[in-house]
Amino acid sequence: MAEVRNKQVVLRDYVSGFPKESDMNIVEGTTILKLPQGSNDVLLKNLYLSCDPYMRMLMTKVEGLDVFGTYTPGSPLTGYGVSKVLESGHPDYKKGDLVWGSTKWEEFSLVSPTQILFKIEHTDVPLSYYTGILGMPGMTAYAGFFEVGSPKKGENVFVSAASGAVGQLVGQFAKLTDCYVVGSAGSKEKVDLLKNKLGFDEAFNYKEESDLNATLKRYFPEGIDIYFENVGGKTLDAVLPNMRVFGRIPVCGMVSQYNLTQPEGVTNLANLIFKRIRMQGFIVGEFYHLYPKFLEFVLPHIRERKVVYVEDIAEGLENGPAALVGLYSGRNVGKQVVVVARD
Amino acid sequence: MAEVRNKQVVLRDYVSGFPKESDMNIVEGTTILKLPQGSNDVLLKNLYLSCDPYMRMLMTKVEGLDVFGTYTPGSPLTGYGVSKVLESGHPDYKKGDLVWGSTKWEEFSLVSPTQILFKIEHTDVPLSYYTGILGMPGMTAYAGFFEVGSPKKGENVFVSAASGAVGQLVGQFAKLTDCYVVGSAGSKEKVDLLKNKLGFDEAFNYKEESDLNATLKRYFPEGIDIYFENVGGKTLDAVLPNMRVFGRIPVCGMVSQYNLTQPEGVTNLANLIFKRIRMQGFIVGEFYHLYPKFLEFVLPHIRERKVVYVEDIAEGLENGPAALVGLYSGRNVGKQVVVVARD
Repeated sequence: MAEVRNKQVVLRDYVSGFPKESDMNIVEGTTILKLPQGSNDVLLKNLYLSCDPYMRMLMTKVEGLDVFGTYTPGSPLTGYGVSKVLESGHPDYKKGDLVWGSTKWEEFSLVSPTQILFKIEHTDVPLSYYTGILGMPGMTAYAGFFEVGSPKKGENVFVSAASGAVGQLVGQFAKLTDCYVVGSAGSKEKVDLLKNKLGFDEAFNYKEESDLNATLKRYFPEGIDIYFENVGGKTLDAVLPNMRVFGRIPVCGMVSQYNLTQPEGVTNLANLIFKRIRMQGFIVGEFYHLYPKFLEFVLPHIRERKVVYVEDIAEGLENGPAALVGLYSGRNVGKQVVVVARD
Repeated sequence: MAEVRNKQVVLRDYVSGFPKESDMNIVEGTTILKLPQGSNDVLLKNLYLSCDPYMRMLMTKVEGLDVFGTYTPGSPLTGYGVSKVLESGHPDYKKGDLVWGSTKWEEFSLVSPTQILFKIEHTDVPLSYYTGILGMPGMTAYAGFFEVGSPKKGENVFVSAASGAVGQLVGQFAKLTDCYVVGSAGSKEKVDLLKNKLGFDEAFNYKEESDLNATLKRYFPEGIDIYFENVGGKTLDAVLPNMRVFGRIPVCGMVSQYNLTQPEGVTNLANLIFKRIRMQGFIVGEFYHLYPKFLEFVLPHIRERKVVYVEDIAEGLENGPAALVGLYSGRNVGKQVVVVARD
C-alpha cells in the first residue's frame, strides 16, 4: 500500500484581527492512498483550492462570528476545491471522476459525499472555474442577484467588492438583465478591469473617495435599486440614503467587518422604512438545488465569451496561506485560486 | 355666512433634538364654515386627532429625515384624525358623514379627498378607535405583522414599544396566530398592561435591563423568528444576534432615533447573513387596499373582546402639543389621542 507525502495547510491557533500567513503552518505529513475497508467516503487528489472570505469566520472563536463552526487548530483548513477521485466507496462517484465541493487544504483528502460534492460534467472550460464562476461563488452571484435581488430590466445596480469572485459576476449578470451597474473596488487596476473587461458601466476606487455618499449620488442621481452587499460597514451606511423606493439589498457578505473586534456601526438604517427597502441575508447553501439551472444559464455565456471571469492564480499549496490572507487586504485581483496540482 | 373661531396648533419653527411643547403655538384664528364656490374638497369638523411618532420627521429639515416632506412653520400640523363632514364638494362624501384620515390640527379643516380619507361605516365601537386600532396604526400592525412578517403558528415574536398604538396590536395578532410573544416597554405600568391586559406571554422594562442581549437570550432561549421593529438603535443591535435562522424583521419605525442628530450605530448586521434574515421596511400607505379585509378581520375580535385597545386620551386641542411631545419620552400609555370635540 503506497504511503505518499501529503502536504497540508494547518491552522496554528484561533485568529484575532487580520489573519497573517504565520497563523498557518505548512506541514509535510504522509497518507496511505487507500480507502479504509467498508468506507462510503471518497479519496480525492486535490487540484485547485478556493480562497473565500467566509473562511475568516472559521478561524475564530469570537461569539457571533463562529456560527458556521470553526477550524480545529492543528488540523488542515477545509474549503471548496476541485479534485480528482482516486478511489470511491460511494456509488455516485467512481475513480477518475472530477468533482468540486468540500475538501481540505492538503494534497490528498478523504471526504464524505454527504458534504457538498458535485460531479464535473463539462470540461471544455478551465477546471479552475469550478472554484469560481462554475462553483460556489458563481451560484452565490446567481442566487443572490436573481433570487434575492429580484432585478428588473433597466434598474440601477451597485456592487461592492465588484472585481471579486462574486462581484464580477453580479455585474455581468446585471448587464445581461439590461441594468445600469456600477462597481466599487480598492485599486486602479481593479477599476480598469471592471470598466474595460467586465462590462460595468462605471466603477470607482473607494479608497480615493473621501465622501462615499456624494460619490454614490454622482453615479446614481436617481438612486440605487439593488445594492449587492459584499462589504458592510461604512459602504452600507453610505448606500442606505442613496437607495430608491422599494430597493433591495441582498446581503452576501460583510468582508470589511470580519477582522474587526468591534464592527463599524451603521447609522442610516431608518432609510429601510423611508424607502421601503428589503435587506436580506442569504447563504448559497440554500440554493444548490438551482445548480443545474444555473449551469444551463451560464455555460453558453462562457462559451460565447459573453461572460468572462478573472482569476488570480497562486501556484502551489505552500503559497496558499499568503493567497488566503491576501483576500482581506484586497491583494487578489479576481477570484483567488490555489493550484495544488494540474491533474 | 358664519365666521367661527378656529383654534389651531401651529409649528413655530423646525425642531432639532427632542421636540418641546414650546415648539408649537396655540393660535386662535377664525374661519368661514362654507366651502369655496366650485370646490371638490370637504369641510371637516375635527373630533379626534392622532399623535403618531412619524410626525417628528415632518418637524425637521434634516436631510434624510425629511423624506415625507415637512410641516410649514406658521401653519397648523397635519396628521390623522376622525372628523365629521360639515359640507362636501365631493360626490363620495356628504354632510354628516364620519370620516378618518388626513386632516389638520385645528377645529375645522378644509381637506382634499385625494388624500387618505375613509368613510366610517361602523359606529358601534368608540369613534376614537379610528385614530388607532381601526385606523392607520391598526392597518400598520396588520400589514407589518401578517404581510411583511409572514408569521407561522408557534413562532417566537418580539415587539418593541409594545404597549404603543401599533405594538399592542402586533402582540395580540401574534397571540391570535398561536405565537409566543414578548414585549418591551419603558415602565412597570406598561409591562403590567402587556402581561395582564394585552395577553403578551412575557414583557420587560428595557430601562431596567443592563444587558439587553442577555435579557433576550433569557426570554428567547431558542431565538426570535419575528422582531417587529419600532425603535431601532441599541434594541435592534441586541436583537440581531438573537434572531433565528430565516427570521424576519418588519421595520415599522425607529422612534429611538428620530430625535438624535447622530443616530446610534448598529454593529451586528452580519447576523443578517449568518441567520439568513429578511429585514424589510414598510409604510402603511402601500397597504390601504387591504383595509376592508382588515376591518372584516378585526371588528369581530373587538366586539368579542378578543382584541382590546388601550388609549391615552388628552382632552382639548390646547393639550395637543404636550400629548404629541410625550410620545418621544414614552409618557403616553397606549395610543395617544387628542379630543378636539366629541361630536
